[in-house]
Amino acid sequence: MIVEMRTGATKKEVNDVVSKAKSLELDVQLNIGTDKTVVALLGSNTGQIPTDIFAVLPGVESVTRIMKPYKIASREFRPKNTIVDCGGIKIGGEQIVVIAGPCAVENEKQLMEAARAVKKAGASILRGGAFKPRTSPFSFQGMQKEGLELLVKAREEFGMPIVTEVVNPQDVLMVSSYADVLQIGSRNMQNFALLTDAGKSRRPVVLKRGFSCTITEWLTAADYLLAEGNDQVILCERGIRTFEDSIRFSLDISAIPVLKKNSHLPVIVDPSHAAGHYTLVPAIAKAAIAAGADGLLIEVHPNPKEALVDGLQSLSTSDFTRLMDELRAIAKSVGRYI
Amino acid sequence: MIVEMRTGATKKEVNDVVSKAKSLELDVQLNIGTDKTVVALLGSNTGQIPTDIFAVLPGVESVTRIMKPYKIASREFRPKNTIVDCGGIKIGGEQIVVIAGPCAVENEKQLMEAARAVKKAGASILRGGAFKPRTSPFSFQGMQKEGLELLVKAREEFGMPIVTEVVNPQDVLMVSSYADVLQIGSRNMQNFALLTDAGKSRRPVVLKRGFSCTITEWLTAADYLLAEGNDQVILCERGIRTFEDSIRFSLDISAIPVLKKNSHLPVIVDPSHAAGHYTLVPAIAKAAIAAGADGLLIEVHPNPKEALVDGLQSLSTSDFTRLMDELRAIAKSVGRYI
Amino acid sequence: MIVEMRTGATKKEVNDVVSKAKSLELDVQLNIGTDKTVVALLGSNTGQIPTDIFAVLPGVESVTRIMKPYKIASREFRPKNTIVDCGGIKIGGEQIVVIAGPCAVENEKQLMEAARAVKKAGASILRGGAFKPRTSPFSFQGMQKEGLELLVKAREEFGMPIVTEVVNPQDVLMVSSYADVLQIGSRNMQNFALLTDAGKSRRPVVLKRGFSCTITEWLTAADYLLAEGNDQVILCERGIRTFEDSIRFSLDISAIPVLKKNSHLPVIVDPSHAAGHYTLVPAIAKAAIAAGADGLLIEVHPNPKEALVDGLQSLSTSDFTRLMDELRAIAKSVGRYI
Amino acid sequence: MIVEMRTGATKKEVNDVVSKAKSLELDVQLNIGTDKTVVALLGSNTGQIPTDIFAVLPGVESVTRIMKPYKIASREFRPKNTIVDCGGIKIGGEQIVVIAGPCAVENEKQLMEAARAVKKAGASILRGGAFKPRTSPFSFQGMQKEGLELLVKAREEFGMPIVTEVVNPQDVLMVSSYADVLQIGSRNMQNFALLTDAGKSRRPVVLKRGFSCTITEWLTAADYLLAEGNDQVILCERGIRTFEDSIRFSLDISAIPVLKKNSHLPVIVDPSHAAGHYTLVPAIAKAAIAAGADGLLIEVHPNPKEALVDGLQSLSTSDFTRLMDELRAIAKSVGRYI
Repeated sequence: MIVEMRTGATKKEVNDVVSKAKSLELDVQLNIGTDKTVVALLGSNTGQIPTDIFAVLPGVESVTRIMKPYKIASREFRPKNTIVDCGGIKIGGEQIVVIAGPCAVENEKQLMEAARAVKKAGASILRGGAFKPRTSPFSFQGMQKEGLELLVKAREEFGMPIVTEVVNPQDVLMVSSYADVLQIGSRNMQNFALLTDAGKSRRPVVLKRGFSCTITEWLTAADYLLAEGNDQVILCERGIRTFEDSIRFSLDISAIPVLKKNSHLPVIVDPSHAAGHYTLVPAIAKAAIAAGADGLLIEVHPNPKEALVDGLQSLSTSDFTRLMDELRAIAKSVGRYI
Repeated sequence: MIVEMRTGATKKEVNDVVSKAKSLELDVQLNIGTDKTVVALLGSNTGQIPTDIFAVLPGVESVTRIMKPYKIASREFRPKNTIVDCGGIKIGGEQIVVIAGPCAVENEKQLMEAARAVKKAGASILRGGAFKPRTSPFSFQGMQKEGLELLVKAREEFGMPIVTEVVNPQDVLMVSSYADVLQIGSRNMQNFALLTDAGKSRRPVVLKRGFSCTITEWLTAADYLLAEGNDQVILCERGIRTFEDSIRFSLDISAIPVLKKNSHLPVIVDPSHAAGHYTLVPAIAKAAIAAGADGLLIEVHPNPKEALVDGLQSLSTSDFTRLMDELRAIAKSVGRYI
Repeated sequence: MIVEMRTGATKKEVNDVVSKAKSLELDVQLNIGTDKTVVALLGSNTGQIPTDIFAVLPGVESVTRIMKPYKIASREFRPKNTIVDCGGIKIGGEQIVVIAGPCAVENEKQLMEAARAVKKAGASILRGGAFKPRTSPFSFQGMQKEGLELLVKAREEFGMPIVTEVVNPQDVLMVSSYADVLQIGSRNMQNFALLTDAGKSRRPVVLKRGFSCTITEWLTAADYLLAEGNDQVILCERGIRTFEDSIRFSLDISAIPVLKKNSHLPVIVDPSHAAGHYTLVPAIAKAAIAAGADGLLIEVHPNPKEALVDGLQSLSTSDFTRLMDELRAIAKSVGRYI
Repeated sequence: MIVEMRTGATKKEVNDVVSKAKSLELDVQLNIGTDKTVVALLGSNTGQIPTDIFAVLPGVESVTRIMKPYKIASREFRPKNTIVDCGGIKIGGEQIVVIAGPCAVENEKQLMEAARAVKKAGASILRGGAFKPRTSPFSFQGMQKEGLELLVKAREEFGMPIVTEVVNPQDVLMVSSYADVLQIGSRNMQNFALLTDAGKSRRPVVLKRGFSCTITEWLTAADYLLAEGNDQVILCERGIRTFEDSIRFSLDISAIPVLKKNSHLPVIVDPSHAAGHYTLVPAIAKAAIAAGADGLLIEVHPNPKEALVDGLQSLSTSDFTRLMDELRAIAKSVGRYI
């Protein structure tokens, strides 16, 4: 941490900074320039110390953090890539894993048709929402427990692990008893009560990025899961909110190399929620693989025209089958396979 | 809702849009131009119908919503201003209500000193956090139940209603048994499980704006509270995330007139979380009142240098007292009082 | 400037950083921690040295700038407030200066009516656009030289200094021969060729903020004007681009205290371009004065319904007259006058 | 254009909207619902009519544009892809064209080394800046005319067309006499004086996206070039400003499919300015090709450590050579070649 003193800060003000740092067991090194004094604070845990502790002291101009605030999610903490085991499917290795299925489970016929089609096209894991966080209270909120039972039925029939979202801390145990993988949605990335309970569950967790959270905040949120001893965390980029209005959310393609550099956790991409429109999904999916993503989370619906939720962003099963062929070619060109 | 057909859309495609609309009991009016057909869908509930239902149909270029997706929070639903009763203090009337106190309850001495000072300076309601949603799991998480008990003690001693945050749906009942007013924080604005339970509590709720949510999304989230029959909702603008890096969040000053135009709910402003730095709080607080806010939520700490949380954005008690004098002058200049 | 070395950086890599710094005549202080070496570079001109020079060196993790990149615009360079003389009207002193008039000069009748009305209501300076930067080439581009002549006529008739925009470096001399004050628009804030020529003109310049530029970039752009020896620069906040869609641009109210802290230049606010809608102008104008702005730039049109440009954001003359009364009350409450 | 009347708008107010529309020779169709009247305005040029003309009328709630404001750049105007001839190299066809070279021309040795290396690695066009728009007036501003002469020398020696930036309208003719292709930088995307003169030049123009401009604004700016009769325009995505701070600008990967859908112009991507750091360039470059870009603009420096401008984002020649091999594999996987 670097504490820059104001021009003209007194000796006492500098000493107060030094004393405060020593009380926190930090090493201190003074840099006394002609105009300004700069105090460097060193120690192994400065990333977890709030900068405010120094910024409020008299005579301080600014405090700059050098260590990142996240810890267990960092590559410095664990240099080797983490590989997450999702009911037998490994995410983070050489294989690029495609997770596909409908946004919401609507009924048995719809789910089974979707599962059959995505399995046939080469998806490895089935997705389907039973609890739906909707922006309006007047919208369809999901089939809930009945939806989970249908997902289990699909898993048995098609031999695919299932991933589904959990939105309330008190549902974590129950959902974990059905699902192979828990999903925490974008709007809950900083729902710390939910993170803590999901961390305790020991299920692998897909942690979607908050649509306006920085990568640093995202990895710090991952620390909530990891701090509970759950190291099975998959990061999912799903688009960020920007001023651009031709797409629902702007997919942050650079998140992939940035995460690969700073974290050991696997990274997947959800092109469907970013795009909001099925015509934009294929280009984003292909870009994600070329940029180094470990997997994709794609919405597929047997009949998008009749979907209860997010039909516009869902691929039809034939569009999905065509896309999978294109993705295989790109995966090969970057030395991986689907 | 306006459905624009693609240039060259077939008659059948137009008819399919019309049939779908009629199946939803909407009125339909066709506008057939030289280049394009535009279909207007009319009805009293088009705000609650997802646009995707039409956007996925073949031949459709775009669907534009004209009705807003929120309903009970809208001024059309209730033309008269709602006045919220917070333990006897009315928010939304002629008085500008100042809510003040420490970010986090840290111990009895700190809370009592803060309460005494803000009361003396003219604040009407005491704030203090007992459950703290922190971005890092390694940060102080609040005194929890013990903090609530201290707040009750302060209420008894100083005769001020208390507002405190709730972060977990399963705590809503418990927190409601202590607090006069519940606060839902920015990161939980779209935590729909929490909103639903808070709506059921019948306590007044301060609903902070999600730091990257539009005003439309905010009012739609308010509908979650209102739909449970709780009409005691106060909207709190606390800054939005932008590219500007001289401040923690950019306070959206225009949110005040926009909310006043579109909603009947009272609007308060939190300059402290927006600013992130005590030197910026007074200017924002003054601007908020000039722009028409019904109240302020300000962090005050008897000793900001020793604060466990957010010390840098807290005013000292003497700074707060000085600010209150300035605020009174501005309140008077806009025909109100504190 | 703070250079953080990677964990495990070699002695040679650290030495290379030190040598490079010494070749630039910087003072160097090493901070050798248990995990990391941090190199502090000190000197009076580090704000003007690109960080890349160090960031590209092997073994460097990050480079953090402590000095701001702007210089002449900073309050450290000139601690006392600059007061700008606009044809006899002083901006930056105790008076809050209101500049008002139509977005575009359309014809003599329109300009004279607007000038008469704003003068009568208490505005001190007349604004009017003769060269209009329009997003589409098919829109009205302004009356150009003829418009300048009408502005001069209005100045003579009503005794008000005039401000008008210049968009092309080759027009600076010509426009300066008519106008008392030059305006550089938001889209030209980083048009460095234009800034350099405007700086040479010796006319006072209103420098509008680029709608997506940080305050640091804005003050650095002001340095282009100041570096040419022109110290008559007024900064004009006019809203920034954010995700919020209820307003055209979100007015950055905190820019006012931030600029007052970091720069000696006067600050005015344009509520009209931010709002995009006349109903939002009064609240923003009032907030700006309460927050400490030195003036306002407001669009007024004698007949907004017939305006060729931006009619929706223009106040009618009666709305403007009413607003001026409200502004006077707020100015008084903050110890100033209009 | 859709004009929504307020609830309770009078018959006269509706009639005034209709009259205004008819005076502009638009077709009008009324939709009279139970609550609201909606007026649809139809005609071939509604994209070029300002919405304000209707929005200011009494009784109007909102005006929604359905036609896009750009015209000549739209795919509706020209359904077939435009192919731009840059000194014999075709951009927009089956070949993916790589433009590479140093950010700034610094001296003959640097430019020749860079040109030799990028040519050998497979680049088709040489880039190099002679006029540099710098955020600070105290930074290196480019070699100007001398730089152009060196570029011409490099073209002769290596047989590659050259692209270079122009920043001042009065330099357009002069720069055109040296360069095969003009570049208009991000900060000048809405410098309409420069666009108009560049449009007159008849040289192919690379139009970089303003870092905070929407795709709609970008295509409308392209209309300025096209309206002068210059149809040789290449769009270059180079990252947009967002809240994310791990990268200089967030590359908008979805701009590629959105532009391909809405415009006939070729699209290239500049990963270097987006990334700001050489380690992020390869992932973005690969993603761009997978997403359908027609080319890349990459900064390469023979010795990034000694670069005067933007060394940190420049690839070394060996890094560039390695990247080109990876790009060839991806190009092949999407059915194209470099």
